[in-house]
Amino acid sequence: MMNSFGTLFRLTTFGESHGAAIGGVVDGMPAGVTIDMDFIRSEMARRRPGQSALVTPRNEADEVELLSGIFEGRSTGTPIGFIIRNTDTRSKDYEDAARWFRPSHADYTYAQKYGLRDYRGGGRASARETAVRVIGGALAKLVLREKGISVEARLAQVGCEKTTEGMEALIGQMKKEGDSIGGIVSCTVTGCPAGLGEPVYGKLHAALGAAMLSINACHGFDYGCGFEGIGMKGSEQNDAFVRRSDGSVGTVTNHSGGIQGGISNGEPITFRVLFKPTPTIMKPQQTVDSDGNEGMLTMKGRHDPCVAVRAVPVVEAMAAMTIVDFLLINASR
Amino acid sequence: MMNSFGTLFRLTTFGESHGAAIGGVVDGMPAGVTIDMDFIRSEMARRRPGQSALVTPRNEADEVELLSGIFEGRSTGTPIGFIIRNTDTRSKDYEDAARWFRPSHADYTYAQKYGLRDYRGGGRASARETAVRVIGGALAKLVLREKGISVEARLAQVGCEKTTEGMEALIGQMKKEGDSIGGIVSCTVTGCPAGLGEPVYGKLHAALGAAMLSINACHGFDYGCGFEGIGMKGSEQNDAFVRRSDGSVGTVTNHSGGIQGGISNGEPITFRVLFKPTPTIMKPQQTVDSDGNEGMLTMKGRHDPCVAVRAVPVVEAMAAMTIVDFLLINASR
Amino acid sequence: MMNSFGTLFRLTTFGESHGAAIGGVVDGMPAGVTIDMDFIRSEMARRRPGQSALVTPRNEADEVELLSGIFEGRSTGTPIGFIIRNTDTRSKDYEDAARWFRPSHADYTYAQKYGLRDYRGGGRASARETAVRVIGGALAKLVLREKGISVEARLAQVGCEKTTEGMEALIGQMKKEGDSIGGIVSCTVTGCPAGLGEPVYGKLHAALGAAMLSINACHGFDYGCGFEGIGMKGSEQNDAFVRRSDGSVGTVTNHSGGIQGGISNGEPITFRVLFKPTPTIMKPQQTVDSDGNEGMLTMKGRHDPCVAVRAVPVVEAMAAMTIVDFLLINASR
Amino acid sequence: MMNSFGTLFRLTTFGESHGAAIGGVVDGMPAGVTIDMDFIRSEMARRRPGQSALVTPRNEADEVELLSGIFEGRSTGTPIGFIIRNTDTRSKDYEDAARWFRPSHADYTYAQKYGLRDYRGGGRASARETAVRVIGGALAKLVLREKGISVEARLAQVGCEKTTEGMEALIGQMKKEGDSIGGIVSCTVTGCPAGLGEPVYGKLHAALGAAMLSINACHGFDYGCGFEGIGMKGSEQNDAFVRRSDGSVGTVTNHSGGIQGGISNGEPITFRVLFKPTPTIMKPQQTVDSDGNEGMLTMKGRHDPCVAVRAVPVVEAMAAMTIVDFLLINASR
Repeated sequence: MMNSFGTLFRLTTFGESHGAAIGGVVDGMPAGVTIDMDFIRSEMARRRPGQSALVTPRNEADEVELLSGIFEGRSTGTPIGFIIRNTDTRSKDYEDAARWFRPSHADYTYAQKYGLRDYRGGGRASARETAVRVIGGALAKLVLREKGISVEARLAQVGCEKTTEGMEALIGQMKKEGDSIGGIVSCTVTGCPAGLGEPVYGKLHAALGAAMLSINACHGFDYGCGFEGIGMKGSEQNDAFVRRSDGSVGTVTNHSGGIQGGISNGEPITFRVLFKPTPTIMKPQQTVDSDGNEGMLTMKGRHDPCVAVRAVPVVEAMAAMTIVDFLLINASR
Repeated sequence: MMNSFGTLFRLTTFGESHGAAIGGVVDGMPAGVTIDMDFIRSEMARRRPGQSALVTPRNEADEVELLSGIFEGRSTGTPIGFIIRNTDTRSKDYEDAARWFRPSHADYTYAQKYGLRDYRGGGRASARETAVRVIGGALAKLVLREKGISVEARLAQVGCEKTTEGMEALIGQMKKEGDSIGGIVSCTVTGCPAGLGEPVYGKLHAALGAAMLSINACHGFDYGCGFEGIGMKGSEQNDAFVRRSDGSVGTVTNHSGGIQGGISNGEPITFRVLFKPTPTIMKPQQTVDSDGNEGMLTMKGRHDPCVAVRAVPVVEAMAAMTIVDFLLINASR
Repeated sequence: MMNSFGTLFRLTTFGESHGAAIGGVVDGMPAGVTIDMDFIRSEMARRRPGQSALVTPRNEADEVELLSGIFEGRSTGTPIGFIIRNTDTRSKDYEDAARWFRPSHADYTYAQKYGLRDYRGGGRASARETAVRVIGGALAKLVLREKGISVEARLAQVGCEKTTEGMEALIGQMKKEGDSIGGIVSCTVTGCPAGLGEPVYGKLHAALGAAMLSINACHGFDYGCGFEGIGMKGSEQNDAFVRRSDGSVGTVTNHSGGIQGGISNGEPITFRVLFKPTPTIMKPQQTVDSDGNEGMLTMKGRHDPCVAVRAVPVVEAMAAMTIVDFLLINASR
Repeated sequence: MMNSFGTLFRLTTFGESHGAAIGGVVDGMPAGVTIDMDFIRSEMARRRPGQSALVTPRNEADEVELLSGIFEGRSTGTPIGFIIRNTDTRSKDYEDAARWFRPSHADYTYAQKYGLRDYRGGGRASARETAVRVIGGALAKLVLREKGISVEARLAQVGCEKTTEGMEALIGQMKKEGDSIGGIVSCTVTGCPAGLGEPVYGKLHAALGAAMLSINACHGFDYGCGFEGIGMKGSEQNDAFVRRSDGSVGTVTNHSGGIQGGISNGEPITFRVLFKPTPTIMKPQQTVDSDGNEGMLTMKGRHDPCVAVRAVPVVEAMAAMTIVDFLLINASR
């Protein structure tokens, strides 16, 4: 139950970073959608590590194989199963991890929860799992494309830096120091009709928030003005309604981030996603081992100084799947 | 489906602010828990409006009637249904609302979604619905009490003010101006065992985030260091593990907010919840009516200058229900 | 979780036979449906006990109060909460039940599961709970009525008797003997479009089966030819397709009961529901008490010689809710 | 959503008979269970076609590959993804199926529901999908084995024949005639503790019924005495409680099939599953094509005269998964 996401458009995933493969099942893909494999591959390429000096050098071929639910180039309405083989799985980098709990990683909590764990590369908690989300998101985007809805995320902040130059410089510095830094990804959904979202517990922004907070290293979510609007009064933050020249109703400002009372109002949906600094750093850290002995751990291997960079397409993927899910739910209303 | 919250401990709610009653059903309450009615009433009293000069003067008697699932003072394991009659429902205050869409309220989006709406007092989108959550939360707290787990929230910030005097002064000023201001509620769960939370989509903080974002006027959520830790490096934010004098493993700091890899690590769980300024203000605002005509709307009636004040017990209630749900889920692992 | 039924059209129920009230919440009622209270009351009247010499003499006023989700006579799309007060609750009839486990009742299993139980009148396991289903079903029927879909059940068999006279005589005899007998209810859904039902685990007949098997005392379900077709060959049971005069496709026979591959084919949906003899009989029976002591129990109080009689409207209610749920799910496809 | 089965122990499946692969994800497998691959393969072998003269000659290698969730021979608590490649996929046998709707197959209803379909070999509706269930069931049986619970099904009836010789002769006759016949599989779960099953909508037999009715060609389900007990009185069908020599409580008879009030009582759980004659027969049949033209269709290719034979391990698999799911749910109570 816990490795599934969504209600009528549902992604179920499996796989550890150093097992045979990762993969997933998309259930609820509407029938008749053209499956654009080039687009799916291009989405995969966007999140792949090893692309620039700024991200982890792990080389993932990430060849996805779609196994079902497609016939003569179109979706059939039945589930789309897919796998990505794991190829570059240098387990030896993780020998220490078998014994020591890496600070602020999932090692200790998994051991507490399950009694045993696949310690290689973070196992199920590895960022590699997000590749599966990107495929689910790519399929969702194919649905959205037919409806004129687009989802675009971008890196908005790294540490306290908000300019491109500042962000790049800070990431470069972290890489040099063997340290890491957090960041904020902002996302906008345009073309979304009014009426998506359910009252009370199924509010659109609650679903978006849960989707984003499920991404590795995500530590916060806000929408519309969010935390930055804390100083504004109601009279400043309220979005006045106007009649547009085409007769439709719109708002003068969009401080609500396109969502009012939990339901989309037809304006662009805007939200931000906070990522903490990745806990994998190259500096010695105090920790304990599985027997409770204290010691110092110095991690080796791959190092991603700012995971927010690679999170951009993952944020889009989670948003796209959420919107498709709510479009399907709304179709029943 | 969308008016239910939780998986194994599930609250389903109904009711509009100006209908006959609001109420709910708690399904999954463990059997044998002593139902402390005084405690439930005291929780209700904490959220009730009309208690001080700072909140809306609506006088809700809020007499809850528990209808089932309890026998000889203890829960039986079957669902606990309950209702609260609506008594103080001055519909005439809302006559204008029948026609005009209140800016940044749910009026327009409900009308778009359903084609019709109960316009009296916000209907289903009214903050009155949170009374039902508080009852669900009180039942959850009775479960947690037996396990030594406590949930405590407090008003941490109003506008940019963080001191009690500053917060009170700002709320007073808003009241005088007929305006409103946002705020932040912080919450801590102590005594929670390690191991709660599910990998990937069922992360504990994702569930807490969705729970909080479902509360009326909530616009943001973070945990641990959250957005305020954006400037920290990994080497600063990582929580070193230590062996405590009693032999248990703990962390030196708690920047992770008690959750690592989506699973509780036994440290206090800490998070923040952002509430926007309530859109109900006493100043004239530009809007449109249901026929698309533009006009100015001046709201009358009750006015709550800072909804974050009354959200404190609601935040606790949602957190308590989430923790109980994950305790039950974890029992099956 | 377990006291809810359905996915997009969902009934959640609560209440014991001898508590303050029983009730429920219908979530997912489409907006804009006219709420015909006379119809709802007439459906309630159909299942009420005490109507004839053939059923239990319990006198239930069964005044249902709809508390929410309705505005100016129409559904708003928000949940419809409702309660029925329990009035005729002669607990003293059940004093023995507090101690002795009634054979083939739920007494023993509830005690094993929960450690404690509300022993008055069967508590949560009482047939009184079905009154709530009938209200959910009446709301569903209002939806179906607008789409030209009807659901009709009838008592098809009592014991081995299939004629009206035979059935009545056998029930009369059981009443006289203080014994009970099982029966079969058959049900037909007409006007249902092709395409309802989901492949694999969400087959329409699997959902109908689960719905029926959840009714008290139900011990079996089949559809189409069912168990009675066990002797037929494929060449006899297959339904040949034909082109009808209006150009539509239909089948010559309907041995499939309107469902092929788990999906409705547009023909009438037909199924049967088996009810065992009610375990409440007036004869002395061997049993044990809660301390494990053996003894003889003679039950007093109300007695229903054939529960299948009163199950007819309950079968219709469960079928109506199932069909509406699948109509809503299908709308998203 | 509709290609998933179970709540806390959940199987999600994908795949068509003539696509690249079929497969699934088991989510909720408890951690620490030894994964006995020999046992899993032996379960697969039991359902494989082409084993005897009585079943379809399709030769499926059915090599299952477990891709995740297992580390050093034991389950880790994370999802177990798996695939089975399709190898023997003679699509040419199904050329006619592209055009003609096979009577009583899922061809017409899929076309109506989705607008398009993978017509090769029944696509998603093929019995090949049950191979995935058997793997899920084998994993569930590994859990049950540790708890001393066993699930055993057997072919109880073919047509009206109940003896082994009679059943074999009838199947042989159908094979010769190019016709088919239905059958009944009976199943017994032993060692199951009292207390499994949830009141009202989550009754254990309702879940078992839904599980069985989701199997291809299943047309009926009953438990305990079932339809064959229709002539029995309550005084005959009630199961008297006794105190056993070891002090435990049991029943003298087991007409309830181990389930009372929807909850297991500790006695063996017994139920029957009805399978219709497979609609694939070698005789000419009247039908229509996708343009509505009438014509005669004579199917070629593989032919299974009695699908109930191969359903035996599938019934066990679905039962095993249901029982594990309820064990996990019950652990939270």
